[in-house]
Amino acid sequence: MEDIVKESLLFDFYGNLLTEKMRRVTELYNEDNLSLAEIAEQEGISRAAVHDRLQKAQQKLEAYESKLGLVARFVENGRAAMRIAALTEEIGRERTDDPDLNGKLREIRELVAVISG
Amino acid sequence: MEDIVKESLLFDFYGNLLTEKMRRVTELYNEDNLSLAEIAEQEGISRAAVHDRLQKAQQKLEAYESKLGLVARFVENGRAAMRIAALTEEIGRERTDDPDLNGKLREIRELVAVISG
Repeated sequence: MEDIVKESLLFDFYGNLLTEKMRRVTELYNEDNLSLAEIAEQEGISRAAVHDRLQKAQQKLEAYESKLGLVARFVENGRAAMRIAALTEEIGRERTDDPDLNGKLREIRELVAVISG
Repeated sequence: MEDIVKESLLFDFYGNLLTEKMRRVTELYNEDNLSLAEIAEQEGISRAAVHDRLQKAQQKLEAYESKLGLVARFVENGRAAMRIAALTEEIGRERTDDPDLNGKLREIRELVAVISG
């Protein structure tokens, strides 16, 4: 997985467990793509302090992942969900004349999207 | 949900985030069903200290749940998974003469069990 995707997923899953300050700088840097200098100005701290806070936040997020493994699990679930979607589509494609079946398959796909999302 | 089930799920999901001491007393009490007096003796601390540690552990687990909501999500996913299993069984029951279809339905059920477990 690309680092940037992984960092973003770590933040999605565990961001709520960071302190407010850590969460804010991480959000400004990763999601809003501000530079260290811009964040430093906005937060009224040095560029080095921003860098330090980002690094600590990243370490915390990775420590949570090593204990809970939610991101790894999310990626695995995504693969399984894609396989289920493919199977329901195969079944439906061979039986387009069966609206009851296709309705049920659609419901399955919707439920799978809820579970794996 | 029954309190005892909820406590057990909270521990399953977030137990790794507790300190070693907190995790141990919680495990002895909730999973091994030891009494406070038995845990006190085993750990070499007072009964009141065991009680205190259990209460703090419980509060931590609930705080994690309020931030991450994994138990609530697990319960919801379980409902969706049961509905998917029911749908695949309905589809299969009406088409027992179609082994290819039933094989695909079985694969879907297995994948859903992985995702929702």
